[in-house]
Amino acid sequence: MNLSHIEHIGIAVNNIEEAKTFFEDVLGLKCYAVEEVKDQKVKTAFFKIGQTKIELLEATSDESPVAKFIAKKGQGIHHIAFATDDVNKSLKEAEEKGIKLIDKQARKGAENLNIGFLHPKSTFGVLTELCGK
Amino acid sequence: MNLSHIEHIGIAVNNIEEAKTFFEDVLGLKCYAVEEVKDQKVKTAFFKIGQTKIELLEATSDESPVAKFIAKKGQGIHHIAFATDDVNKSLKEAEEKGIKLIDKQARKGAENLNIGFLHPKSTFGVLTELCGK
Repeated sequence: MNLSHIEHIGIAVNNIEEAKTFFEDVLGLKCYAVEEVKDQKVKTAFFKIGQTKIELLEATSDESPVAKFIAKKGQGIHHIAFATDDVNKSLKEAEEKGIKLIDKQARKGAENLNIGFLHPKSTFGVLTELCGK
Repeated sequence: MNLSHIEHIGIAVNNIEEAKTFFEDVLGLKCYAVEEVKDQKVKTAFFKIGQTKIELLEATSDESPVAKFIAKKGQGIHHIAFATDDVNKSLKEAEEKGIKLIDKQARKGAENLNIGFLHPKSTFGVLTELCGK
C-alpha cells in the first residue's frame, strides 16, 4: 500500500466550541474550517499542523458513530487517516490481506475527500481510515 | 506554543510482534527500531510515515500505564505527541493556561527525546505529549 503521510487524526469530543479552546488557546493551532458531514451525523472542525490535520468530531445525533464511541470510551482520539493516492485500490489490497472492511467502496467524507475505513477488529483496535482525492 | 508537526502517534497493543504485521504487511510501513523504555515499563516499535512516527507500545509489566490503558479501553490509539523546540517551556505555557500536567518537567523518553505529558482531564480526553530534542 502506498501511503505518504498521516492525513488527519480524528478526535471525538462532546462539544467542538469547548474543545477548540484547547487546540487554539493552548496548542496555538488555528481552526480553518467547520463543516457538517450529514452522512456520518457529525460536525467537524479542522486544524493544520505540518502535513497533518486535526479533525474534531462532534455528534449531531445519538445515532452517530461518534456518539456511540464517546458513550463507550469517553472523549478522545477516535481514528487515524492515512493519505493514499487511490482509496479503492488500498481498500481492496487490505481486504485481500485478510483485513475486515467497514467500507467496501470509497465514499465522500469531510473536505470532499474519498474515504474508506478498516474495521478496528482487524487493526489492533486502531480505527484506520484511508483517505485521498 | 510553537508546535511544528505531529512527532508521533502512540498505539497501545498487547503484543508488538503480532501488531507489527498489520503496519508492515498491510500498510506497507517499515519498522526501523525496537526499544525498551524501562522508566515507563514499555517495549516500543517505531515506523515512519511522512513527518510522523507510529510508536507501538507493549507493556512489560502489569503496572505499566499502557497495561492500565488497555485494561480500561482496549488496544488502540494511546496518545498524540506534538513536536516542540522546548518541552519545558511548552509545559510551563500549558500550565499557565490552566492545563493539568502529568509531567511538571521534561524527562527522557524513547529515542532519547525530551518528553512531557499533559493530563487528558484537561485536554478533552486526548493524552497529549510534547516532544523535542
